[in-house]
Amino acid sequence: MYFTTIHQMTKMLDNLGRCLEKGAAHAKARSFDPAVLLNARLAPDQFHLTRQVQAACDAAKFAAARLAGRDPPRHEDREQTVDELRARVADTAAYLRTFTADDFAGAGERVVPLGWLPGKGLLGRDYLTELAAPNFYFHVATAYSILRHNGVDLGKADFIGSLALRDV
Amino acid sequence: MYFTTIHQMTKMLDNLGRCLEKGAAHAKARSFDPAVLLNARLAPDQFHLTRQVQAACDAAKFAAARLAGRDPPRHEDREQTVDELRARVADTAAYLRTFTADDFAGAGERVVPLGWLPGKGLLGRDYLTELAAPNFYFHVATAYSILRHNGVDLGKADFIGSLALRDV
Repeated sequence: MYFTTIHQMTKMLDNLGRCLEKGAAHAKARSFDPAVLLNARLAPDQFHLTRQVQAACDAAKFAAARLAGRDPPRHEDREQTVDELRARVADTAAYLRTFTADDFAGAGERVVPLGWLPGKGLLGRDYLTELAAPNFYFHVATAYSILRHNGVDLGKADFIGSLALRDV
Repeated sequence: MYFTTIHQMTKMLDNLGRCLEKGAAHAKARSFDPAVLLNARLAPDQFHLTRQVQAACDAAKFAAARLAGRDPPRHEDREQTVDELRARVADTAAYLRTFTADDFAGAGERVVPLGWLPGKGLLGRDYLTELAAPNFYFHVATAYSILRHNGVDLGKADFIGSLALRDV
């Protein structure tokens, strides 16, 4: 379950990178500065696109690291361009790919402390299901929605990505 | 993993119902017809709020039913008001609550056919991870974003909901 979810997050990050690429292509085709997209948001008190993407990357990075008991790599949140943001996404996906199923042995029963709630934590299984996965999907879907709202030609398939189809 | 995810979807539907309630309260406080929210969307060729909520309910209902090998209940998609939409959400959550962990024995290895892709299907474990869960979160997050974009006072805690906190 832990490795499966981290593996799935890797695919979702790859999908997110392609959505950003489509955003940059849209800006180029319409001759506007891609920074307009990076600074776009759906509500004035909500994260803009860059911060949504950084938050999605952090959600995935921290999920993998905390469940495996590793120290996550630091990111300085200095991305200013679509290329830099895509590099952040790719870097996070590459980090997730360093994990194996064995890294998550016993992850469900270990308590993950919550940095923003001193003295409190969640069992690994609750941390993944109740917090890490919904939070990750929240930021990926919101990034997608910001691009979609700004006219980028995206559909559900861009969000979902490839499927391990079988004949029935 | 299967029961855990369905259980989590139940909580997310409860959260979604409360977000819709906040939407209705916002419309009342600002003296506008709540149907404006129900018909709101983030892009002209995207589902409006009502359809996003129906899609979230269907994603959860079909995930539980297909993984357990049950026939899902039918819904006619006739919701016209916030109260009717909240009832749809509550009805779906109640349906999910009829499942037990035993219902999903062997679910990961059974092939789930895909109605929209004749002749193709996914192993239950891939169906849940690659399609059902991301699709569910996509529609819940988009419903949230539509409300947020229209000024409803929502924050991340409304999306995430309660956590099984422990002392550390």
